[in-house]
Amino acid sequence: MIAEKPTELSYNPHMPLSQALLLPRIAIEDTMPTLDGGQFAVKAVVGQDVVVTSKVFADGHDKLAVRIRWRAEGEESWHSETMGELGNNGWQGQFRVERQGRHLFCIEAWIDQFASFCYELEKKHSARVPVSLELQEGRTMVQHASERTEGQLSEQLAGLHHELSALLETEQVALFLHQRSADLMAEADHRAYLSISQEYPLDVEREIAQFASWYELFPRSITDDKARHGTFNDVHSRLPMIQDMGFDVLYFPPIHPIGRSFRKGPNNSLTAGPDDPGSPYAIGSAEGGHEAIHPQLGTREDFRRLVVAAAEHGLEIALDFAIQCSQDHPWLEQHPGWFNWRPDGTIKYAENPPKKYQDIVNVDFYAADAIPSLWVELRDIVVGWVEEGVKIFRVDNPHTKPLPFWQWLIADVRALHPEVIFLAEAFTTPAMMARLGKVGYSQSYTYFTWRNTKYELSTYLSELNESPWAECYRPNFFVNTPDINPAFLHESGRAGFLIRAALATMGSGLWGMYSGFELCESAPIPGKEEYLDSEKYEIRPRDFNAPGNIIAEIAQLNRIRRQNPALHTHLGLKIYNAWNDNILYFGKRSADGSNFILVAVNLDPHNVQEASFELPLWEMGLPDDAQTQGEDLMNGHRWTWYGKYQTTRLDPAHLPFGIWRITTS
Amino acid sequence: MIAEKPTELSYNPHMPLSQALLLPRIAIEDTMPTLDGGQFAVKAVVGQDVVVTSKVFADGHDKLAVRIRWRAEGEESWHSETMGELGNNGWQGQFRVERQGRHLFCIEAWIDQFASFCYELEKKHSARVPVSLELQEGRTMVQHASERTEGQLSEQLAGLHHELSALLETEQVALFLHQRSADLMAEADHRAYLSISQEYPLDVEREIAQFASWYELFPRSITDDKARHGTFNDVHSRLPMIQDMGFDVLYFPPIHPIGRSFRKGPNNSLTAGPDDPGSPYAIGSAEGGHEAIHPQLGTREDFRRLVVAAAEHGLEIALDFAIQCSQDHPWLEQHPGWFNWRPDGTIKYAENPPKKYQDIVNVDFYAADAIPSLWVELRDIVVGWVEEGVKIFRVDNPHTKPLPFWQWLIADVRALHPEVIFLAEAFTTPAMMARLGKVGYSQSYTYFTWRNTKYELSTYLSELNESPWAECYRPNFFVNTPDINPAFLHESGRAGFLIRAALATMGSGLWGMYSGFELCESAPIPGKEEYLDSEKYEIRPRDFNAPGNIIAEIAQLNRIRRQNPALHTHLGLKIYNAWNDNILYFGKRSADGSNFILVAVNLDPHNVQEASFELPLWEMGLPDDAQTQGEDLMNGHRWTWYGKYQTTRLDPAHLPFGIWRITTS
Repeated sequence: MIAEKPTELSYNPHMPLSQALLLPRIAIEDTMPTLDGGQFAVKAVVGQDVVVTSKVFADGHDKLAVRIRWRAEGEESWHSETMGELGNNGWQGQFRVERQGRHLFCIEAWIDQFASFCYELEKKHSARVPVSLELQEGRTMVQHASERTEGQLSEQLAGLHHELSALLETEQVALFLHQRSADLMAEADHRAYLSISQEYPLDVEREIAQFASWYELFPRSITDDKARHGTFNDVHSRLPMIQDMGFDVLYFPPIHPIGRSFRKGPNNSLTAGPDDPGSPYAIGSAEGGHEAIHPQLGTREDFRRLVVAAAEHGLEIALDFAIQCSQDHPWLEQHPGWFNWRPDGTIKYAENPPKKYQDIVNVDFYAADAIPSLWVELRDIVVGWVEEGVKIFRVDNPHTKPLPFWQWLIADVRALHPEVIFLAEAFTTPAMMARLGKVGYSQSYTYFTWRNTKYELSTYLSELNESPWAECYRPNFFVNTPDINPAFLHESGRAGFLIRAALATMGSGLWGMYSGFELCESAPIPGKEEYLDSEKYEIRPRDFNAPGNIIAEIAQLNRIRRQNPALHTHLGLKIYNAWNDNILYFGKRSADGSNFILVAVNLDPHNVQEASFELPLWEMGLPDDAQTQGEDLMNGHRWTWYGKYQTTRLDPAHLPFGIWRITTS
Repeated sequence: MIAEKPTELSYNPHMPLSQALLLPRIAIEDTMPTLDGGQFAVKAVVGQDVVVTSKVFADGHDKLAVRIRWRAEGEESWHSETMGELGNNGWQGQFRVERQGRHLFCIEAWIDQFASFCYELEKKHSARVPVSLELQEGRTMVQHASERTEGQLSEQLAGLHHELSALLETEQVALFLHQRSADLMAEADHRAYLSISQEYPLDVEREIAQFASWYELFPRSITDDKARHGTFNDVHSRLPMIQDMGFDVLYFPPIHPIGRSFRKGPNNSLTAGPDDPGSPYAIGSAEGGHEAIHPQLGTREDFRRLVVAAAEHGLEIALDFAIQCSQDHPWLEQHPGWFNWRPDGTIKYAENPPKKYQDIVNVDFYAADAIPSLWVELRDIVVGWVEEGVKIFRVDNPHTKPLPFWQWLIADVRALHPEVIFLAEAFTTPAMMARLGKVGYSQSYTYFTWRNTKYELSTYLSELNESPWAECYRPNFFVNTPDINPAFLHESGRAGFLIRAALATMGSGLWGMYSGFELCESAPIPGKEEYLDSEKYEIRPRDFNAPGNIIAEIAQLNRIRRQNPALHTHLGLKIYNAWNDNILYFGKRSADGSNFILVAVNLDPHNVQEASFELPLWEMGLPDDAQTQGEDLMNGHRWTWYGKYQTTRLDPAHLPFGIWRITTS
């Protein structure tokens, strides 16, 4: 390493030769799945095969050995698996993740000198070129391998060398190319020009983070009488029906004491009557704040019993984490430094002139007095509910709170409780929606509610399958929320509810429904996408057996989801051709290819629509005239499809969609 | 910063709260142009406006201030310019680079508290909401700004505060919203929550790195008599004609002494006759190596005179940098440790069984004896030629030499000589082609030569305009090379040469031609894309006035290129609709939009083709029925186009393409 001309070894202060000599000879590029060059973790669930691809290449024609390495954080040693060539320098490998929490993976590559030798040897031998020099070089490689190893391996290599030396040329070639030689030489490989990629993080969650059906209700509305505030104890009666519909998560809006000051009345009116229950999002009163339970809902013991009872019905309770405060929240007195105050001594509240939102005030995360006490308090509130058995949080408007706060809070909670899941209720710009997933949100609300046409839906469903969305963002397709009464449903009738339910349940592994949807409730505030007599401001008893409901269909859709792995994620969705702009037609296929579901939805709730469509036989490696078996998963009918082109007729008066499983036998 | 519960400040060892509090509140993402997260420099040329975009956003609704900063390496202070909003968190700014060499840029953003205040103030004032508290808050902001600044600025702010305090409310609002207040407060801004992106590198080269026409010739063929070896002095006679055709770069294959051992004869035959000149790529003989000049070409003085004469004709000489050696290269004796030797003492040469390439041997960059002496020697050879006035190098097969070597060599040479340009002659996988650009190659040979159909060409031309190609890879569209006699030209006749010339000259800022193309030479070795009687192995005198040549057309194409800035780069190309699969139709528009060229090429050299096509009026902000002016740049004809849909007829017997400039007046 002595330079011949040391005084001018390098002209360039930024790349001295000594440093260039340490640069990896093998390039490792475009590794996926990754996010922002490894700055954030990509997502997976327990039991998933994580498929990793990369471009790996070097100068010249030598054979490369490429491996994927991974470990769970806390594991001392790496696991490792070979990657295979895809062509054009592409390599692919995979590993199964078996436990929750942060993992790391990286790619390592080196020049496989023995494989390169064997490749050349075989080529020359096949071309009947003399190879005695090559055989001599090969024997030297084996000898060196024996010399640099120890113990049994060294002895085996010495034996191989001895064996080779005694053979005729053709026999030597055969022995060099034998798997036994490859295995021994691979074990002894000194990994010439080893290149290792950076380590990329991966967050592994339980499957329910990716595949779940959410049901939202206001516990206070579980009552026969609007005048009687429903309780946790009342909710027990709803559990069997929610379970029967096939839901996994039962989500409550905030269950904390509700402020009195500036309390909103029915339909968001500025003045509440003495019996109006107020919005549960105006959190905090003399009875307590985010850590407390609204006394009218019951006691902490009642809550604990409900968590247990829900679990017995296959339901996890999800709570709302809404950081805003009513003006009666104890923090205003205990921690005035967490809030912003006006020159006249009043508190700053949100405004959209001329509207004022005086019932709610927000903390200032970067106020001098809030660092770090507010952050720690909020973390402890979450952990407090985790300790009560709540492992799923729907977070209200996370995009109005600092991203570093979420990045810390989520990582911090999950370090001790990796089973905890956060759903972002953010309806904002795409960049912020994605970023919330990057900083740790398991899943997010989406634009689905406003995607109605074939073009809108096919574009959106496809985009969610592409980078960076596929790596950072799990969409939870809510068909409605207490805040969103979609315009599409105002005039669609029952068929419209079936259309949206089919799109949500088939389009994503995660979907959600706010109660009333199954009853086809849609009365809006005129001209707005809001519910008339919104449950946010009043108690709303319901008859869940009212005629015209779609409870049976929802139950069947959720049953289909459970039975078909392809439907356990929004990934693997492809739009296929159906020649009618009112019919959206897509397929979902499980990663291993074994489960293949086709979905055709008539987006027009008022008219029968027909279309020719293509069975994606090419995806299954079948010719255009192949026979396949179809099964209607809504009614169990089975048939044989002949060839690629088929037709369908979807009648909204009956069922505006078809869900078919396609198989080859 | 004292924790309330210090023992459990953070559960997570990877993201302690103290660290989270230092994370930037403002996210800066997806900054372009960048390569591999800033690992490599993107490319620009002197005088270019570098347009930078990024996603910049934070929680909440505050107004952001976003700026782009840049400096040339070696400059002490940063330049800075505001960026403007594009919507959906997108921001864009630009800066002009005025000097060659490495530059750096980054993005900085902060919460613009005064702008946020003014936005709220204006909204409330317009909604006729009382604003006296807001005005008080605003005056306090001005007062604080005065207090934290010094000198004149502080006095001006104090003056502003004084002025405000004396005004009526409506007048105060007007003064707050006045540009003078905005300017003063911006100057005093303490840049709350300042967030700075990483620094991204940018390599600025002279314009010829992006816009140049290359002409390749073998100096030894500049002779009237195959028996008389042409010389540098003979080349002088060719300079006026090459200049007249509009070329900028005159490129010679290797000019070094040629080996005798294993010298190849005509048509790559294994045995050369005594008078066969050999391949110039078999570099090195007793007369010298890569630093030497082949004696039959002339002396060093002759070469220097030619460099000067070429410059007087507007031509830069480009040399070939081909690292391989003939077996007579002096290095084999001087530096045997730079090569690989067989067990029998012979040198290792390239083979593709049963073929042997014994006329050429390759150095081993990582041989123990080659580090670092070989690397330094190769760098010094390049610098030696730079000192002879050669600033452009065409590098033979760079993909078979280590990437770190190129990364170091190019950076090292350009640190002292930023004007030096390297062209990669790599025909290999896309990943390697791109990577060579990333590690420093200014430009590259391409797949253009094998893209013939409308689909192939439109896909390829579009891809080169997309990431990562647009940032790292400048395509030099060679229509032929001594190694590539494209199949398309074998049967195309003169029209085919015009088609390929039009595609190359209009498709990229860089194009190249190997002599003979202008004479429509295309005789192949039967069944191969190689020239019969290849000039690589023999001297080939030519009659450059032979009838049927396309010299006039090439000269006109190069003239059009010089006169139209849109044609000075491959970027800014878009494919437009022409309803005929034999007609490729595209547009090129300069970055400032002022120069807009439309090109329609009949890809069928044998038949007249007609098509309706769309004028891209939408790009010019014009309605579909707008009138535009057209000018045929090949013959100067002018006309008025009425509306969007037009037709064209392209006759290969006459001219198989149309090149039109479109303007609105």
